[in-house]
Amino acid sequence: MKLAELATPALVVDAAALDANLHAMSAALPGPRLRPHVKAHKCTALAKRQAALGHATFTCATIREVEGMAAAGLGADLLLANEVLDARRLGRLDARVTVAVDSEATIAAAAAGGVREVLVDVNVGLPRCGCAPEDAGRLADAARRRGLTVRGVMGYEGHLMLAPDQADRAKRTAEAMVLLARAHADVGGDVVSAGGTGTYDLNDVATEIQAGSYALMDTAYAKLGGPFAPALWIAATVISVNPRFAVADCGLKALGMDHGNPDVDGAKVWFCSDEHVTFAPETPLRAGDRVRVWPAHVDPTVAYHERLHIVSGEDVLDVWPVDLRGW
Amino acid sequence: MKLAELATPALVVDAAALDANLHAMSAALPGPRLRPHVKAHKCTALAKRQAALGHATFTCATIREVEGMAAAGLGADLLLANEVLDARRLGRLDARVTVAVDSEATIAAAAAGGVREVLVDVNVGLPRCGCAPEDAGRLADAARRRGLTVRGVMGYEGHLMLAPDQADRAKRTAEAMVLLARAHADVGGDVVSAGGTGTYDLNDVATEIQAGSYALMDTAYAKLGGPFAPALWIAATVISVNPRFAVADCGLKALGMDHGNPDVDGAKVWFCSDEHVTFAPETPLRAGDRVRVWPAHVDPTVAYHERLHIVSGEDVLDVWPVDLRGW
Repeated sequence: MKLAELATPALVVDAAALDANLHAMSAALPGPRLRPHVKAHKCTALAKRQAALGHATFTCATIREVEGMAAAGLGADLLLANEVLDARRLGRLDARVTVAVDSEATIAAAAAGGVREVLVDVNVGLPRCGCAPEDAGRLADAARRRGLTVRGVMGYEGHLMLAPDQADRAKRTAEAMVLLARAHADVGGDVVSAGGTGTYDLNDVATEIQAGSYALMDTAYAKLGGPFAPALWIAATVISVNPRFAVADCGLKALGMDHGNPDVDGAKVWFCSDEHVTFAPETPLRAGDRVRVWPAHVDPTVAYHERLHIVSGEDVLDVWPVDLRGW
Repeated sequence: MKLAELATPALVVDAAALDANLHAMSAALPGPRLRPHVKAHKCTALAKRQAALGHATFTCATIREVEGMAAAGLGADLLLANEVLDARRLGRLDARVTVAVDSEATIAAAAAGGVREVLVDVNVGLPRCGCAPEDAGRLADAARRRGLTVRGVMGYEGHLMLAPDQADRAKRTAEAMVLLARAHADVGGDVVSAGGTGTYDLNDVATEIQAGSYALMDTAYAKLGGPFAPALWIAATVISVNPRFAVADCGLKALGMDHGNPDVDGAKVWFCSDEHVTFAPETPLRAGDRVRVWPAHVDPTVAYHERLHIVSGEDVLDVWPVDLRGW
């Protein structure tokens, strides 16, 4: 099949760009130094490419992602880097599952659900989950009293991922990791899990980096520079033209909008509606022309689609289900 | 099943509120005066409730929605209120399908795809699809020359739907509808299709109103007042607490974010991450507590979920698949 024959909107991945991104990250963080985060692609076919490059450990954000990875035979070491209050679905899996805990309640849920291993999740500055660093040792003891193995700590410096200046990002990452290292000293264990695409080369405290966006990238991460290139766009069809603007059939139901409007090649984007993007093209377009729409945030964008179309030039090489979406 | 047993995040619909919304709209716009827009719920089970109240005509935004409605036996009169450049999937359906056209190219596509009926889509002020009003008559003639039946015109005043002042909204809707009426005089046909939940009681030019959001509602439409009450929320679980804030497991992958952050009952929302909402509750919460998250924009929110859970109090009465999502 040809790219031009795909019904639009269609999520498209450039095979060579994806391959280059995967290789660049695996060279920087080989084997267990990288724990690829599947939330950014929600696709076991893509995870298998990451596994083929030597990564046997993965990060998940939802129970469904853990279940799907286990079902795909990728369950050697799955970290649910998120708290859950009902771990029964995790406890039933034929896989090695480690879950983040940050409270007595989440420790109790892990134990009650049949999960055997945990990481103590530490708040390193992002106002989200994670215990206070000084509370981590106490929680580790509480987990061990319940019979759980405490593998170490995690602490996601998510508030720093898109800090535009690299030196500033490095300095603030180091400060955040001081907190995580202090907690780790109290908790023990082999694992210090942290980081992401924005800090993968800056975080020298973490034993493993939880990066995901690097594989497909988006316009927000691309602004940081670095070795990863945008590999994902949405193929859209121009459905209406006007002297001042054009409209294509890719709207906010097909795009993660929390990082702002998408980009359209050779155009200034005005706004998105449910099923439309209105934009001012530099050169006139005609109804029926195809355009590339580049999402600002890859993670939700992928989650809104059923499949990834893997292309090389004009050829569609493969179609990968986005099989880890939902909850 | 009980509401408290649902795995979270879960899309929840209050059965009584939905029923009241459906009845209120059907009383205001009986039978063919309303052409319910399915893009706001993407659910044929909900469309059947609308049909049971006397509405046999429906509006769709995507080819998949038209296909799903036809497959569900709701194909008596389906309007795809959107331009397409490849109408072959529409032409194959065992249903009455009318498609919007606004150019020679979309007319040619409709004819080539085997669609038999069209509406001329007129731009009434929203910078999106639709021909210039003075061009509508020429396009109607072009469509008829290709053997298409021109049923009339449509013109969506979408830029006015959320205008906060009702008198202003009424005045500007009337001005927009002057353009549509002028185009209708040139085009002919029985149908003048326009409007939405924000103008359903203000638009007295349209022969039929394309409202959809009224059924489930959202916080943006609720600000307008009127007889429709929010009937849809997302059940979420508090997974982490902190002296200053709490975190629940409903993030931007579960929420249409283009109208801004959701509301959480009794709390001030700080921000959403992929799978989290961070908020400051007025009274302390504990991990494991359930909260209601009210989306700012219903249409994309529903599109990101697999099913609607219909509840009455604490009882889950039914589960309806969101069977019209995707493209």
